[in-house]
This record gives sequence, C-alpha cells and structure tokens, in this order.
Amino acid sequence: MNLKRLKEQVLTANLDLPRHGLVTFTWGNVSGIDREQGLVVIKPSGVSYDKMLLEDLVVLDLAGRQVEGALRPSSDTATHLVLYRTYPELGGVVHTHSTHATAWAQAGRAIPVFGTTQADYFNGAVPCSRLLTPSEVGEDYEGLTGHLIVETLQQIPILTMPGVLVANHGPFSWGKDAHEAVHNAVVLEEVARMAWLTHQINPQANNLPDYMLEKHYQRKHGKHAYYGQTKA
Amino acid sequence: MNLKRLKEQVLTANLDLPRHGLVTFTWGNVSGIDREQGLVVIKPSGVSYDKMLLEDLVVLDLAGRQVEGALRPSSDTATHLVLYRTYPELGGVVHTHSTHATAWAQAGRAIPVFGTTQADYFNGAVPCSRLLTPSEVGEDYEGLTGHLIVETLQQIPILTMPGVLVANHGPFSWGKDAHEAVHNAVVLEEVARMAWLTHQINPQANNLPDYMLEKHYQRKHGKHAYYGQTKA
Amino acid sequence: MNLKRLKEQVLTANLDLPRHGLVTFTWGNVSGIDREQGLVVIKPSGVSYDKMLLEDLVVLDLAGRQVEGALRPSSDTATHLVLYRTYPELGGVVHTHSTHATAWAQAGRAIPVFGTTQADYFNGAVPCSRLLTPSEVGEDYEGLTGHLIVETLQQIPILTMPGVLVANHGPFSWGKDAHEAVHNAVVLEEVARMAWLTHQINPQANNLPDYMLEKHYQRKHGKHAYYGQTKA
Amino acid sequence: MNLKRLKEQVLTANLDLPRHGLVTFTWGNVSGIDREQGLVVIKPSGVSYDKMLLEDLVVLDLAGRQVEGALRPSSDTATHLVLYRTYPELGGVVHTHSTHATAWAQAGRAIPVFGTTQADYFNGAVPCSRLLTPSEVGEDYEGLTGHLIVETLQQIPILTMPGVLVANHGPFSWGKDAHEAVHNAVVLEEVARMAWLTHQINPQANNLPDYMLEKHYQRKHGKHAYYGQTKA
Repeated sequence: MNLKRLKEQVLTANLDLPRHGLVTFTWGNVSGIDREQGLVVIKPSGVSYDKMLLEDLVVLDLAGRQVEGALRPSSDTATHLVLYRTYPELGGVVHTHSTHATAWAQAGRAIPVFGTTQADYFNGAVPCSRLLTPSEVGEDYEGLTGHLIVETLQQIPILTMPGVLVANHGPFSWGKDAHEAVHNAVVLEEVARMAWLTHQINPQANNLPDYMLEKHYQRKHGKHAYYGQTKA
Repeated sequence: MNLKRLKEQVLTANLDLPRHGLVTFTWGNVSGIDREQGLVVIKPSGVSYDKMLLEDLVVLDLAGRQVEGALRPSSDTATHLVLYRTYPELGGVVHTHSTHATAWAQAGRAIPVFGTTQADYFNGAVPCSRLLTPSEVGEDYEGLTGHLIVETLQQIPILTMPGVLVANHGPFSWGKDAHEAVHNAVVLEEVARMAWLTHQINPQANNLPDYMLEKHYQRKHGKHAYYGQTKA
Repeated sequence: MNLKRLKEQVLTANLDLPRHGLVTFTWGNVSGIDREQGLVVIKPSGVSYDKMLLEDLVVLDLAGRQVEGALRPSSDTATHLVLYRTYPELGGVVHTHSTHATAWAQAGRAIPVFGTTQADYFNGAVPCSRLLTPSEVGEDYEGLTGHLIVETLQQIPILTMPGVLVANHGPFSWGKDAHEAVHNAVVLEEVARMAWLTHQINPQANNLPDYMLEKHYQRKHGKHAYYGQTKA
Repeated sequence: MNLKRLKEQVLTANLDLPRHGLVTFTWGNVSGIDREQGLVVIKPSGVSYDKMLLEDLVVLDLAGRQVEGALRPSSDTATHLVLYRTYPELGGVVHTHSTHATAWAQAGRAIPVFGTTQADYFNGAVPCSRLLTPSEVGEDYEGLTGHLIVETLQQIPILTMPGVLVANHGPFSWGKDAHEAVHNAVVLEEVARMAWLTHQINPQANNLPDYMLEKHYQRKHGKHAYYGQTKA
C-alpha cells in the first residue's frame, strides 16, 4: 500500500472516533501500519479532531524514529509500536477513553462474556491487565504499557481477542487495519455498556456457556463462517 | 400486496432501526411477509444500513428457498421463518441487539410489567427463554431458536405479546407488518430501559396489578378500545 | 386570549415534547386553557408529532363537551379537565412517559429533594400517588386519575409543586401556561435522573435541609426573588 | 486584553455549555476576567443561550459594582468574584448543574480518582464541600458559597484542582481563561460519569495509586510534560 493511502485511512479512522461517540476532546488515537515498508502512521498528540489534516499525521518506523511530520506523535505511540512489533497480524491499533470500557478498566475487572453480542467478536471475556509497578511507570511508561498488554493477553491468538483493558486507564483495540480497529473499539464500548447493565439487573448473571461462545464466534469468524457476504 | 411494495416496506423498516437507535453497525434485521404468495422479504447478511438498496433484499419462500436476490439472507433467517410458519397472524419480524433489551436477555430475566407503558403494548411480563442445549446449538441453531421462541411464548396469543427475549442473546419482536414490528422493537427497548431504572430505584417495586394491566391493554387493543383515531 | 393564539401555543408546546426528548412516539400530551371562555385545547389521541397540524387540535369546554375538531381528544383528557376545574391558577397541563420520571413512578417512590436543582422549581419532594383501586379503575379511570392527583397533592399550593408522579404510570406537570407546563416537565425528568444517580452513588444521601430548600425556592419564586430578569 | 475581546470569549464559552450537553435551559454561567483592568464579564441571569447577544453580557469590577450592561448579572456572580479575588491565577470560572457531577454533589461525596482520565486533569480526588449553615445561607449566600469553595480546596494549588463540588448543589470549575474553564467543566462531568459507573461495577474499586496519579498529571502538566504540541 502506498503511504498516502495509509495516511488517508488513518485520518478517516481517527475522525471516526468522535463520530461514534468514543472520545471527549482529543482523548483517543488511531494508528495504521504498512508492513512492507515497516512504517507506522499515527495521530499527532493533543490536536483536535475537527482541525486534523492529512499533513498533521506522524510517520515513524517500528523502532520509533520519526520519518515524516512536523508535529509530535501521540504520547501513546510507544504502546502502539510494541503491539505492532509483537503481533505481525495487526494492521491498526486504537486507544480511547470510551466511557463504559474505561469504567470496567477503572473497576479492574475483565468484561465477562454475557451474551452472543460479545461472542460475535471476542472469543471470551475481555481481559483486564494488572497495574504497572512504580518502577515500571518510572522507566518507560508507554512502552511497558505495551508489554503489559502482551502479558495480559497471554497466548491468545491476537485477532480472536481484538481488545483489552489496561487497569485504571482504558481500552486498547486492534484489527487487520485501522478501520477494523475502530470498528472493534465501537464494539468493545457497546459490550462494556451491555455487561454493566446485565450486572445491574442480575449480579449473578451467568456467562454464555462455552458451546454458545464457540458457535457464535465460529459462525462469524471460523472456517465455515456464514455471516455476511464476504466469507467463503 | 405486490412484492415491490413489500420490499419498499421492508427496506424502510430496516432503515428505521438505526434511526431509532436500536442498532450498532449491522446488528439487526427486519423481514416482512406476503401471505398470499407465501413470500418473505428479508435484509441481506452483514450489509450496512447506509448502503442498503431495494435490490439487496432477499426474497424466500416459507421453506427457506431463495427466490430473488444475489446476496445471502440474514443469518437469522431460519428463526424468522419458524415464526411465520407458526403464527399466521404475523406480518413482520425484527431482531436487534438493542442495548437494554439485550441486557435483560443476558441477565436471563423476563421484563416485569412495572407500569402502564408496558401494559399499553404487552399483555404481561416480556418472557425470557431458556438457553439452547449443546445438541440444539449443534444441529440447526437458527431454526431451533425459532422453536425456542414458540416454546417460551407457550399459548399466549401472539399479537398480545409482541416480543420476547432469547436468553444470553437479545430481543425478537413482531407485528402485523414490518412497520409495526419495528414500532414494537422500539417499545421493547424503552420498557426494558424503564424496568432497569425501576429496579435500581426500588428492588422491591411491585408489578402493575392485573386489573390495571387489563385496563391499559384493553383501552388500547380491546373491543372497546378508545385510544387513537382508528379503532372502532 | 383568542382561541387561535391558544391553539398555536398548545401546538408548539406539544412539538416541544419530542424536541426535549420527553416522548417516544405519541406518548405524551399537552393542553392549555382560555380561562375567560372556559375552553381547553388539547392534543388529539394517537397522532404523530411530526404530522400534527393546528386543525388537528381538539377544543373542549370544562365539562368535556367537544366544541371544535374532527379528531378524538387525548385519552387522558378527563385527567386534564379535573386539574383545570380544581386549580384556577393552572393555564397548561402536560402528561408524558419520560424515562426517569416514569421509573420513579413505577418504583412507587416520591423523588426526594436531594439538591438545589429541584429546590429551584419544586418546593419539596415530588410526591407519588397511591394506586387506584379496582373499582376506581372500572368506573371513570381518567377522571379519577385527576382526583388521585388532587388527593396526592393534599393542600400544597399548586404552582409551588408543578408536577406529580402517578404510581405505576408516569408524571404529570403543569404551569401558568402550556409553555411553562412543558418547561416543568423537562425539569421533572432531569431531577428524576439526577435523583436516581444520587441514590446510586450514595443510598444514604441526605435531603437538602429545609433552610436551603427555602432559600433556593424563594430566591427564584419568592416576593424578593432575584433570579432572572423579569421578577420585581 | 481589550474588553470587547474578553466579551467575545465569554459569550463563546457560555454558548459552549449547551453545545457540550452541560446545561438544561439556563442552568449554567461562565465568566472571564481582565486582570489588568480588574473587570469581570459574566452571563446575565436567566437569559436563554440561543438568544444571548454580546451586549447582554454584564461587566463588573472585582468589588461587584456593575460597570456595563443593562441586565442583571448571574445570581451566582458573588461566588465567581470571591474566586477571582482569592486566586490571582484564575482567568475564567464556570458553574453548571451538569447531570453526573451534580449527582456526586447531591450524594455529598468527593469524586475518587479511579483512573488516568481524571489524573490527566485533576491532581487527586475532586473534593466535595460541607453544607452551608442556616446563618451562612441567611447572610450572603452566594458570597459565602465562594468562601466555602476556598475552604474546601484548603491549600491545594488552584490550577492543579480545576473544579470542586458544592454539596447538594453542583460543580464549579475554572481555568486560566473562560475557554479552559469550560473545557475543565466538560472533563469534570465525564470523570463524574465514569466514576459512577466504576462504583457500580465494583464498589471496592481501588483508587489510582499515587505514583500513577503523579505520572499522568506530570506528563501533561509538569515541567517535563510531553503531551500535546505546545508544552516545552
């Protein structure tokens, strides 16, 4: 993919955050990667969505060296880069402080898989990380947040669990490109809201049994998927 | 009714889902039936509402054979067909994952009839199904979801209870045509929201007594109804 | 005031209900009265707000005889008329099923006066009625709902308590004209929402003490009021 | 700064309140100060945002003497003036009854610092005041509300805690100018909403540890801040 095309995708994906009600002010950032060139495009830090232009986007290599752009990249850039380096399947990463997902992160709780809505996208509960220690925070805060996400996901195949909660902070999500990463951020916020309501109505609500989780996840993402128009 | 007219109704009814805030992305589907010809028109699977055209709709007979349309029908089509085959009174069926109704479904709880808002449309609590068993899920998942709804409704006259919750999944609703089915889906979401709030304010809130339920249901739907302009 | 002017006011006030998010479909009605002529103008039953025209409004005398209009008046008309006959100060009456106020009504609970927002409009807790008995419901349901409101308000001066909850049903509000009645319906919904949240955050939250209630109510409505531009 | 410029800023900041969903009707007010001339510009009392013009704004000196404007200033003017006289760093002050922040104020509870969203703006929990006593309310209610805020903040540097809750009333916030004060009012409402949800999901949720609070507050506001484009 050429870099201009990637920048357009990343700009659109960033502008989709306020359109879907996921951000207050500038509290969110989307990046995308060109795997062939090894270049990441990311939102600049603290720039309003309604003033953001293509040339404001920042281009970096996977080691974090700034290749293009006059502005400083998102303060969460190091977290994005760790995820791209660890998971070659990822094409886009999003971080927001969307209200309900952040509330679960602040509560320090994984989002239980209460229903098929979540099972259609997440192959289980959305995990919540531990807190970083004082020495981790003092050292390389944003980079170690990336490693914390990797630690939290354990060995789960990354595209079967397209989001995570960083404790007392907020959600990160991802996908095969920037557009899908934002799509998954919208889903994560909505399942977080539904799970909160479910918990309010019935504090003893049961998790979706494994055979239902499997059924829903596979009918949409498995080898024999039959949801949508594009799967084989 | 001619088929073109039915398609227009079904398209409009599908587009009404996002307009009423009932769906995220493509998470919902509406169908309508022409009883004379025995043909069902339904939304295609996984197509965005903002790009949906009349020719994208899929036409099937009641046995599920595709009669018109190049796209694959909604993955929930088999559920719709069971409802049409079981209840000759139905003219339209809707499935959504609307937030509050889905939360009650995830909580595995019927929506109690706390007030006259619900009594104006539903002749009692909105029932919640049991879970399908592993063997049911493995066999004919969507068709058996339809039979599960029929089992859950027991012998209730279908148009006096225009919606149901499928446990850990979400709401289905219906009506004498696709438009009324969507209308009832909006009502179901709103009564689900009010019931959640009621339960939060007073966990011991009483159900509406039977004589009030009867009064409200009958003043709107009974032989001597006097609500609106069109009843006799 | 001439009748045409009153009709315009009542139409505008009815259209303000959806504009302020107080109604789903046709679930609300506003009336206004011309005290000199003894004529009440009210919304027709079951007509959509987006299609309502001036000529659809219904004119009745205080005894409920229809004077103008081809359509049937709101099914709650008898309730409005009892209020107008009982309280000569009233110029407008509103009934809605607004979400949070209805939830308190369904919970069978008065809205406690937790803060100055409520004290600026309501001189105390917003009372909740008892349920009508089976024989009352069987007799003259809507008229007796009006008498139930009067019973619930006891001897409170009507304009110092511009709203009430009818148990398991929903809120009624009023004011010196139709516009003010809708204004108070908006306030009632917002204080209901704030009171629910307050109760969630702290189930032992204290009521505003009487001296604060008095201060706020009087600085806005008392003889020496100094809020706004129009008070002396 | 010239006075016309300040008026334009204060008008824009007032109009931003409804744009951000912070106010119902006229329930909010923003002021700004020109420190050189010692003049405060504030919203008039009880005027609708959609009709407010530049010439409606009221200009006062720090002693509260009206210098310009035909209308009566906001009834909360005396509170704003105490804050400007006490804290020379302040350039703008806002008062609203925004829903979730008001709920915490009504609950009489400080907003705990559950996550980094709050830590990015507030250097700790947002404190909640005591109630004014009967004699304080009887004497100089609005002025003493200002002194109550000062008492509540104790010795906290004012710009590190850009908001407070007045018990059973609602939030006040501030900043180096009127625009920043409104920005902080939006943040306060959002962190109040997130904290309520967090508390619902996990009543034993932990506060953000001090080392994380420090890290987030400093990366945005400290000497070595690296968030955004304008910090050194």
